[in-house]
Amino acid sequence: MEFSSKIIEQAVDAFAQLPGVGKKTALRFVLHVIKQDKYQSENLSSIINQLKTDLKYCVKCHNISEQDICEICSNAGRDETTVCVVQDYRDVMAIENTGLYKGHYHVLGGLISPLEGITPSNLNIETLVNKISTNAVTEIILALNATMEGETTSFYIFRKIAPYHIKLSTIARGIAVGDELEYADEVTLGRSLTNRIPFDSLLKK
Amino acid sequence: MEFSSKIIEQAVDAFAQLPGVGKKTALRFVLHVIKQDKYQSENLSSIINQLKTDLKYCVKCHNISEQDICEICSNAGRDETTVCVVQDYRDVMAIENTGLYKGHYHVLGGLISPLEGITPSNLNIETLVNKISTNAVTEIILALNATMEGETTSFYIFRKIAPYHIKLSTIARGIAVGDELEYADEVTLGRSLTNRIPFDSLLKK
Repeated sequence: MEFSSKIIEQAVDAFAQLPGVGKKTALRFVLHVIKQDKYQSENLSSIINQLKTDLKYCVKCHNISEQDICEICSNAGRDETTVCVVQDYRDVMAIENTGLYKGHYHVLGGLISPLEGITPSNLNIETLVNKISTNAVTEIILALNATMEGETTSFYIFRKIAPYHIKLSTIARGIAVGDELEYADEVTLGRSLTNRIPFDSLLKK
Repeated sequence: MEFSSKIIEQAVDAFAQLPGVGKKTALRFVLHVIKQDKYQSENLSSIINQLKTDLKYCVKCHNISEQDICEICSNAGRDETTVCVVQDYRDVMAIENTGLYKGHYHVLGGLISPLEGITPSNLNIETLVNKISTNAVTEIILALNATMEGETTSFYIFRKIAPYHIKLSTIARGIAVGDELEYADEVTLGRSLTNRIPFDSLLKK
């Protein structure tokens, strides 16, 4: 794409860095910003700076936070002995929205992916192991994507923390609520059969 | 969606203003910016401001430009008597990329669309009529989208400039180069039949 203006070209390049945004979409964004009210574009510009200056990673769980220690970690009402391991901030949000979890989190910051060049050393796994060896953690719940990368990461963490003989579980894989059996893939259906749950445990909830 | 941080919420809202971006995509953008190097996010932030401060609309053709008069309008080598009417900057780019047009442009800034509340008074149509009545324009080429809005706008402009008895044409609708007839819709195929072109005119090019 050839642009008549250097500024438009630079802006397109900057927007095209965002995930899933190509040059055509970036140009749409740029033309939209040019048309926007000045206060709106100034707002977007300043909030982008604020993201870098006002946000940090919680020193305990690595979640994004406005304080050094995030709201969840500093909440005395939550159970510090249970730690749920997730990929990123979005997964914390998703689990918090269920309203069913009252423990702490540990945010890995990604998943092991040799294709994308992400190795265990790029993730917050070492600090998880430290947490287990020094703190009073009694249960770890792995809540990672049901993808190749997620399973690999789960297995890696399992191997790392096996020596500590701690209660370790992974969230259930199975038929999603509202789904019909005939459209489920075999692997999912197979897993949901293998990991079938006593019916009376459902009645208790 | 509930966010644990006010800053993330504001940033998601700001990104979600961009065309075609919902809250989920906006959150992906925000998490990406948080992870980015500081100089990259500062670059995005400052270029957004620059778009508003350093760019303006050309006073002659309303195209986006760094000067008061854009490069095309100030280029003495281009034919001022032919004016190509387009919707926006992207269409100027597209036509310039063909390398086949050496006249001037007139950018409307949109298309008539009652559904989106865009009426002729929101577009640069009055200035087009003025240009015709006062300048030495001899030909107008309408190069608008082949959509309902594009055709409506073309017809509106046709009515507005009919009194000036100027040469007026619209770009050809027909089978795209590389397309197969059997997959063309009837309207396009019908139009390409009605507006068939003498074969020897192709040979001259």
